[in-house]
Amino acid sequence: MFSGAQVSLYPMSDNFVGIILKAIGALEPYRANFRIETDDMSTLLVGPPDQLFPAMRDLFAAAANGGTHCVLAATVSRGCPGEPDDPICTPIEGSAFDKPLPERIAAALAAVESAPRLGLSVAAQFSLYPLGNGHHMDEIYGCIEFLKNSGVFDRSKNFCTKLRGDAGPVFATLSEAFLRFGAPQGHVALDLKVSANSPSKI
Amino acid sequence: MFSGAQVSLYPMSDNFVGIILKAIGALEPYRANFRIETDDMSTLLVGPPDQLFPAMRDLFAAAANGGTHCVLAATVSRGCPGEPDDPICTPIEGSAFDKPLPERIAAALAAVESAPRLGLSVAAQFSLYPLGNGHHMDEIYGCIEFLKNSGVFDRSKNFCTKLRGDAGPVFATLSEAFLRFGAPQGHVALDLKVSANSPSKI
Repeated sequence: MFSGAQVSLYPMSDNFVGIILKAIGALEPYRANFRIETDDMSTLLVGPPDQLFPAMRDLFAAAANGGTHCVLAATVSRGCPGEPDDPICTPIEGSAFDKPLPERIAAALAAVESAPRLGLSVAAQFSLYPLGNGHHMDEIYGCIEFLKNSGVFDRSKNFCTKLRGDAGPVFATLSEAFLRFGAPQGHVALDLKVSANSPSKI
Repeated sequence: MFSGAQVSLYPMSDNFVGIILKAIGALEPYRANFRIETDDMSTLLVGPPDQLFPAMRDLFAAAANGGTHCVLAATVSRGCPGEPDDPICTPIEGSAFDKPLPERIAAALAAVESAPRLGLSVAAQFSLYPLGNGHHMDEIYGCIEFLKNSGVFDRSKNFCTKLRGDAGPVFATLSEAFLRFGAPQGHVALDLKVSANSPSKI
């Protein structure tokens, strides 16, 4: 298994460099678990799939907590057949697939319920792509059932699903959708944007 | 066929609202061809697949031409089986699939070669997802051959491909990759970020 993300942070501020540099400090607790590479467009995180969303959550919260309108955009992937297996990508929490689908939905809902609240309101928009063969439609329907009951489901849009709520349960919901559904060793990609402090009225 | 994009514009500036509102004017020439809906996270464009990238190019150039570090992020889709066929999504230029693969690669390269130069340097990063069945590997390899010869290929990264060059040929390359490869009526999604005026050294 190979898992990771290309992550970008966009603070809508003249001080975007300062906000990004300060927020990157929030990745320190995760640094030992990940391979991290940065260029002019994104930061690559390669490591345990169950640590990706907590790391992105803490990075984003560190940038957005000052009140600046910020967006985090990420391309998240697990099981890409073109990438070599890498021991650094072993899930810290163990397999998320060792139970039948109804029990996994219940476990995902419990994980969101017990997620820490950060006091930061966010909107998120994502597309989940099960690639290649081996993904059964009942897994997709199970994931949709989970999302609609997550407590942070906002609505379905063309090409994506929108969530809204506290950053804690929103990132936990994204993590559970990514980790717990689809073929256990299958290729799953997730296209994500998370926004905070937008001045737009909805 | 149903085709469209969820498009977001991120100017790294205190004046992000003003830059976005001014840039939206660049969509005027395309407005008659598209259904357009905006919320706090993105603008939905539904319309002809061959007009999507020119519309995004002009929107992005209008925002970035002032020198502000700007990013455009988009989730682009064609052929989603969950969406109804829509006459507004008929390609204006006709089918891009009426020739064998080697001729399509040549046509894609010619389209990039003849693309207008905008005088705006950009970097782009994208992931192309052929979803469901019916996409043959020779189509994927043909698309990769096209990209590597496009003149704006920068490098392969984990989870994505990076382009660099003038906004004209870069957006033309993205458009050709999206339109001309994969199953003609198949579901193809493209996760895109385009950046200009970044202060980062590479």
